[in-house]
Amino acid sequence: MAEPLTLHEDPRSGNCYKIRLTGALLGLPLATRAYDIMAGETRTPEFLAQVNANGRIPVLQIGEGCAARFLPESNAACWYLAHGSALIPDDRFAQADMLRWMFFEQYNHEPNVATLRFWLHFVGEDNLSDGQRAQIDAKRAGGSAALALMDQHLADHTFFGGDAANLADLALFPYSHVAEEGGFDLGVTPHIRSWIARMQALPGFVPMD
Amino acid sequence: MAEPLTLHEDPRSGNCYKIRLTGALLGLPLATRAYDIMAGETRTPEFLAQVNANGRIPVLQIGEGCAARFLPESNAACWYLAHGSALIPDDRFAQADMLRWMFFEQYNHEPNVATLRFWLHFVGEDNLSDGQRAQIDAKRAGGSAALALMDQHLADHTFFGGDAANLADLALFPYSHVAEEGGFDLGVTPHIRSWIARMQALPGFVPMD
Repeated sequence: MAEPLTLHEDPRSGNCYKIRLTGALLGLPLATRAYDIMAGETRTPEFLAQVNANGRIPVLQIGEGCAARFLPESNAACWYLAHGSALIPDDRFAQADMLRWMFFEQYNHEPNVATLRFWLHFVGEDNLSDGQRAQIDAKRAGGSAALALMDQHLADHTFFGGDAANLADLALFPYSHVAEEGGFDLGVTPHIRSWIARMQALPGFVPMD
Repeated sequence: MAEPLTLHEDPRSGNCYKIRLTGALLGLPLATRAYDIMAGETRTPEFLAQVNANGRIPVLQIGEGCAARFLPESNAACWYLAHGSALIPDDRFAQADMLRWMFFEQYNHEPNVATLRFWLHFVGEDNLSDGQRAQIDAKRAGGSAALALMDQHLADHTFFGGDAANLADLALFPYSHVAEEGGFDLGVTPHIRSWIARMQALPGFVPMD
């Protein structure tokens, strides 16, 4: 019998949306529990002790009560959900290549594209610290390079998964499709814009909000 | 028949060492081709066109000539090598939990612990740009938090893989065991120090240099 699944999330987070989108495409019901990260709700002693010692969301909870297990890291949670499904290819190279884009997402994309969206769209430029402000140019350059690399790849690929979307697409979609909220211009990445439309047409697709 | 494997690497890089260590533990022979990242050898038009459009190493090359395939991202390359081995657990949760630590490594650990090592040990503090210098404090705090989280986990786990090392351990070991080259004090993380000794005792272990 399938264990109940609960997503500990902030609905504004693209990392959380990844997991909801993966669950929706797979037809897996996910309960949600919302936290306000800007109010420090993921840094309480209870959260750190029970849900994630790293003080971050999303966390996928599998099971309930004393037997509950907690899985931090959005892409790991997507992997858990998609286990045994067509969203993870069986082929050895294809599987590693999918993970390649998921690690790229966490290293080159999210820290730039998502962080600038968070800072500029939610925190507000006037409220940034000097240390944050000093990083804007580097994050703008890094995020633009990540989006350009994606656009180059999508010039001759339908999806990052090849002919069909897989977890690489689900990892890259959330922050890419709202990149303009972080000041990135998707007008210069036409292949990303076409891919966004293809992603939004997937059977079972759910929007971010 | 197994295809020949070639690692495009800079021997000083912990991300490259991950792959060499994984290959060694699995008994897989890897040819290597060395690049000097500080001399821009991974940003040449040839490298960008043939090996990795992202201009980064490591890249695992599978096969040779026109049929060669190229796999960037160190943790994806380790995944490819370890396919079907005991370094990747079969259990659904254990597999996702291993990936959880591998994503943590690329998001919370490497950009802080490895980057400070690169800046302070190889580039030299006097040669840093103002933008880099402005990030030192944040990277020191982020790296210390990542190491503290690892130490907390290792207080009651033998390996990140549980009773036996898996790819999570191989991803986290390289930059952790040389963290002091980036100015991190492993004297405050005794469980990491014990784990480093256990890693160095694994059958087939090879050192970084």
